[in-house]
Amino acid sequence: MLVSGKPFRTIWSVEDGGGVYVIDQTRLPHEFVVEKLVTLEDVARAITTMVVRGAPLIGAAAGYGMALAARQDASNAGLERAAATLVATRPTAVNLRWAVQRQLDGLRMLKSSARAEAASLLAERICEEDVASCSSIGDHGARIIAAIAAKKKDRVNLLTHCNAGWLCAVDWGTALAPIFKAHEQGVDLHVWVDETRPRNQGAALTAWELKSHGVPHTLVVDNAGGHLMQRGKVDMVIVGSDRTAANGDVGNKIGTYLKALAAADNGVPFFAALPVSTIDWTLKDGRDCPIEERDSDEVLWVRGRTRSGAIDSVLIAPEGVVAANPAFDVTPARFVEGIITERGVAKASAEGLRALYPEMARK
Amino acid sequence: MLVSGKPFRTIWSVEDGGGVYVIDQTRLPHEFVVEKLVTLEDVARAITTMVVRGAPLIGAAAGYGMALAARQDASNAGLERAAATLVATRPTAVNLRWAVQRQLDGLRMLKSSARAEAASLLAERICEEDVASCSSIGDHGARIIAAIAAKKKDRVNLLTHCNAGWLCAVDWGTALAPIFKAHEQGVDLHVWVDETRPRNQGAALTAWELKSHGVPHTLVVDNAGGHLMQRGKVDMVIVGSDRTAANGDVGNKIGTYLKALAAADNGVPFFAALPVSTIDWTLKDGRDCPIEERDSDEVLWVRGRTRSGAIDSVLIAPEGVVAANPAFDVTPARFVEGIITERGVAKASAEGLRALYPEMARK
Repeated sequence: MLVSGKPFRTIWSVEDGGGVYVIDQTRLPHEFVVEKLVTLEDVARAITTMVVRGAPLIGAAAGYGMALAARQDASNAGLERAAATLVATRPTAVNLRWAVQRQLDGLRMLKSSARAEAASLLAERICEEDVASCSSIGDHGARIIAAIAAKKKDRVNLLTHCNAGWLCAVDWGTALAPIFKAHEQGVDLHVWVDETRPRNQGAALTAWELKSHGVPHTLVVDNAGGHLMQRGKVDMVIVGSDRTAANGDVGNKIGTYLKALAAADNGVPFFAALPVSTIDWTLKDGRDCPIEERDSDEVLWVRGRTRSGAIDSVLIAPEGVVAANPAFDVTPARFVEGIITERGVAKASAEGLRALYPEMARK
Repeated sequence: MLVSGKPFRTIWSVEDGGGVYVIDQTRLPHEFVVEKLVTLEDVARAITTMVVRGAPLIGAAAGYGMALAARQDASNAGLERAAATLVATRPTAVNLRWAVQRQLDGLRMLKSSARAEAASLLAERICEEDVASCSSIGDHGARIIAAIAAKKKDRVNLLTHCNAGWLCAVDWGTALAPIFKAHEQGVDLHVWVDETRPRNQGAALTAWELKSHGVPHTLVVDNAGGHLMQRGKVDMVIVGSDRTAANGDVGNKIGTYLKALAAADNGVPFFAALPVSTIDWTLKDGRDCPIEERDSDEVLWVRGRTRSGAIDSVLIAPEGVVAANPAFDVTPARFVEGIITERGVAKASAEGLRALYPEMARK
């Protein structure tokens, strides 16, 4: 999408395949900085520190990570070490495991000398597929928004949590793709943007994306969504997912579950938008979803720009206070009106997902 | 309660009645500063800027505000102007109106020359009653915590939102009073402290109170509570209230409703603790509760201490982003297990509250 009038993706390869460029998302919204990653370790560090984040983008980055590793050591042992390094970076993100496994499966069939180039091509393909997939999610989701608009005959108010926009993918995004598409189709809409503590991806990234693209939006704290729904100010909730179970339980950024509860209590439809790579077919039930516990400093320190223009962090609690930081929660499928994927809208159930992806569910 | 070993209240009068001291709560937890308020305007400003905050403390401060006003102009017109100024500071806080009305009703019966001294005495009495009332709320609530402990035979995990500790009252607090009392009685307990965006009263005040008093606690973002309940890590939710309707609907800090929904979905009992002065008997239903919309800078800027030790604020969203800031929400009575008051524990319903306060409900 556009940044200061210039089209960007979140990740693109260096011409000779010896590296990959990414937008450093930890420095948004106050600074727009492109970083070059050259080694597997660079990629792993970029994922761990959330220079790149968002399930689809993590998958795309991991694909490139494997390609960069294959240039150094294309042996089976080397590739398996690289895979283990990448998978360890973010335990909840299923796209990461999916992309790494896809590289491993593809490369194992080739002789070592052919692996580096093949890995590079496969990393590109993972990116292109993601763009096509997000665009398709956008088309399917935009139809739902348009239907609400047609029924309401007034501006549609959506609420989203965290950042599932183009910054979380390669382009378009997941939850924001339907919003971008509906906006481009001329649907009158407005987005409530959840701040999304502790890392404020809503305030820093979603608000930045919507502002850059000219989509009407208002930032609110995570606490506000329930009240807005009680007062009839939300027509639809749409979020992304980091891992969705085979039964339709949606693992996503911590706090998503609370919005789903409020949506259910107020008759507001709650949708998750995600590519098939986010579905963990081996996870029968979301209750078994691993939940990453991140550094408590993310809770205790808040980063932003001071009035003097410097980027700084402030401690918001008394010195020495202990904080816990579970990064995700699981929204039970019973609260999910539908799962919007690149193939259409599935009922949030094992049957619903199986019907849309018979070939995957059979595995 | 104790601050660095020395007993403090949140508000106390200057010896000659010509002013009142308060703890500047906007500077906690990093600085402990006592401010002297001398005029009605000082008190109104302290309430508006949240130097003093919390329903019972706002009521106590408003009592002193009327007393200081009576020293300047004890005429009916003067007192009514003072009352209007105070009531306008925080539209949701019912204790404020209650304290102001109590002063007006008491002073109107006296001749002008006797009003200043009487107002001063009544302000003192409002404070003493608040301390007794919070202590009693603590005793009633502590019995509930002790009962959970006896049944669980293990550490009791409580979750609280915002600050309803001694800093929100004159002493003891409302929601934290049962926790302080149960802790003093030797009940093994631990408190999950919601950060409470946008003003972070949980991180800044509740964590500070519990740390000062030695009560085990862990800070979490507001988004985390639902997940903690899903994983069985919360045995009881206890919050304060800014205005409770006659039917038991609980108006409280924005985000309370989301925790009540999660508690209901996970079978966790949800209690509100409040003095009778918080009940608005004229408000039949919480849906009609006025909700204060506060300055959007509270959402956009986060205040704290930098690594260099300076107190500063950081902007967490792109320059120019619009934010909305509804400060309260209403938790429908059907999600409230009980309302803990100075007289005992009421069912959250018109009948339940009437049974505890027959003389009030009759009005």
